[in-house]
Amino acid sequence: MPPSNHQFLLAARPLGLPKASDWDFVTAPAAAPQTGEILVRTNYISLDPAMRGWMNEGKSYVPAVKIGEVMRALAVGEVIESADQKFAPGDFVSGPLGVQEFATIKAGLVQKIDATLAPLPVFLNLLGMTGMTAYFGLLEVGEPKAGETVVVSGAAGAVGAAVGQIAKIKGCRVVGIAGGAEKCRYIVQELGFDAAIDYKAEDAAQGLKRTCPDGIDVYFDNVGGDILDACLARINLRARIVICGAISQYNSTTAIKGPANYLSLLVNRARMQGMIVFDYADRYHIAAQDMAAWMKEGKLQGREDVVEGIENFPSALLKLFSGENFGKLVLKV
Amino acid sequence: MPPSNHQFLLAARPLGLPKASDWDFVTAPAAAPQTGEILVRTNYISLDPAMRGWMNEGKSYVPAVKIGEVMRALAVGEVIESADQKFAPGDFVSGPLGVQEFATIKAGLVQKIDATLAPLPVFLNLLGMTGMTAYFGLLEVGEPKAGETVVVSGAAGAVGAAVGQIAKIKGCRVVGIAGGAEKCRYIVQELGFDAAIDYKAEDAAQGLKRTCPDGIDVYFDNVGGDILDACLARINLRARIVICGAISQYNSTTAIKGPANYLSLLVNRARMQGMIVFDYADRYHIAAQDMAAWMKEGKLQGREDVVEGIENFPSALLKLFSGENFGKLVLKV
Repeated sequence: MPPSNHQFLLAARPLGLPKASDWDFVTAPAAAPQTGEILVRTNYISLDPAMRGWMNEGKSYVPAVKIGEVMRALAVGEVIESADQKFAPGDFVSGPLGVQEFATIKAGLVQKIDATLAPLPVFLNLLGMTGMTAYFGLLEVGEPKAGETVVVSGAAGAVGAAVGQIAKIKGCRVVGIAGGAEKCRYIVQELGFDAAIDYKAEDAAQGLKRTCPDGIDVYFDNVGGDILDACLARINLRARIVICGAISQYNSTTAIKGPANYLSLLVNRARMQGMIVFDYADRYHIAAQDMAAWMKEGKLQGREDVVEGIENFPSALLKLFSGENFGKLVLKV
Repeated sequence: MPPSNHQFLLAARPLGLPKASDWDFVTAPAAAPQTGEILVRTNYISLDPAMRGWMNEGKSYVPAVKIGEVMRALAVGEVIESADQKFAPGDFVSGPLGVQEFATIKAGLVQKIDATLAPLPVFLNLLGMTGMTAYFGLLEVGEPKAGETVVVSGAAGAVGAAVGQIAKIKGCRVVGIAGGAEKCRYIVQELGFDAAIDYKAEDAAQGLKRTCPDGIDVYFDNVGGDILDACLARINLRARIVICGAISQYNSTTAIKGPANYLSLLVNRARMQGMIVFDYADRYHIAAQDMAAWMKEGKLQGREDVVEGIENFPSALLKLFSGENFGKLVLKV
């Protein structure tokens, strides 16, 4: 008997912040796996800012989720039935399982994970796309050199926290921008950032002046908007700006705010470059080895913000955009 | 007896478009050259969009022209008196002679030019900073590959026209954006561009759709504003945007318009990078050899727009911003 499967299907394309009615929460029998497929019970679902983009119509780096489709999400889970020789019941996997309790999915779309190495949510955080994004975005696009000043926004978020710690490991001076005193305390005192700017308490430009007296060599941007502009105004010659996200703009119902200070790129012969983690898939295993080693050495730590209950998906996702979450946001199914 | 020297001194920092009263047109005796200096009679003065930036207060890639100082300009002229062993009267030189009839300048600041090779204005155009900007901006920052689509704005301007022709030499498909039917005819029929967009007659986004069915691989931006945004919306994976200038924004009295479509950099893993020609000074001679060879082979041609009379400097400069000039704008002294 196929298990009964609770799923969130995309019901509408949101205008501005998503609301619960943008999805239908339905129950359907899970499909039995056909040859080459596996049936997976979802344990943890990754909640990511990128999900907001996937809900929009139009061309992007991946197709939009269609109306009526299961909401796309990365997740980890346990194989409960397999019609593929590479997987057996009891295996743990990560992949695009979607916001649902059970996923019937092509085996080639998931990766086996060794659940004895770390708790499952870590495979959505430092050992998952989040960690890979930080690793490749910072090291391959940002190209930090020891002694340089690296600034990261969304610094207490999952990607930002990892970026800052990796930059420290590489010998950089690291300044994090985050919202609220507790997040700022966390990144400095627990993660070892050199300084923090609480953008809710201090003007970002002022904070950058205070914490980056020698300018910015690498800015890892997760937020866009005014903070990107403030950083542009303070970059050094040949600075690198990594465009990883723009969470301040994803729910904008008016035109996106372009960086008015972009001519600082010209004056400083600097570059601004976008990145998508999927481009580095053939080297995830190398990054994961580095990340695991750094975690073991105590140089890299993660923090997961776990919300329980698949039915809470819509409200949990909104925590990303309100700045409420702290660390990697995951939904425990 | 020192010759009498007509000079334009910066009198005020313009708000918006410069006006004649932003300079004082004065007469003073030219200073006799001291040891290591030369006295040069200016023949042709280069009029460049960058001059607008030099009039602004504040930090940039070169210091601002101070109030009361001779207006900065690149120029070519003839040495009439020398107190430096490397120069003799009759030598022709190019360098930052300023908007004046005579310059008394340190010999190390100018380069000797071989006036038998080309008419003097060419040393301000293809064999000068203009040509160097096009050469290094396109080849080093844009990194075009044969078969790729290169788009350039300000395409009938001095830099843009050179960029397009160099891109053709490198085997690219080239689309120019210019204002007016005659400029568009010129770049296609005389310079060999593959297509032109007259932004005064056709919406730039529409024109890009028409002329770049396979997207844009390299965009060389001289103008900023809406055209930069339209190009961002049409870039390909791993596209390169060269930020060389932003003439649409230089006289803005309101906030600069940032590129609202900058997240296209993320989606397309593309980069936007600024360039300043002076960084390539140690390789100008290599570029000049290439440029001269291409000119000889008939693959690269320049066009100079010569305004006569140093007293016409203020109105001549404005032609740059009205889009009136056609080719490299120079002032004949």
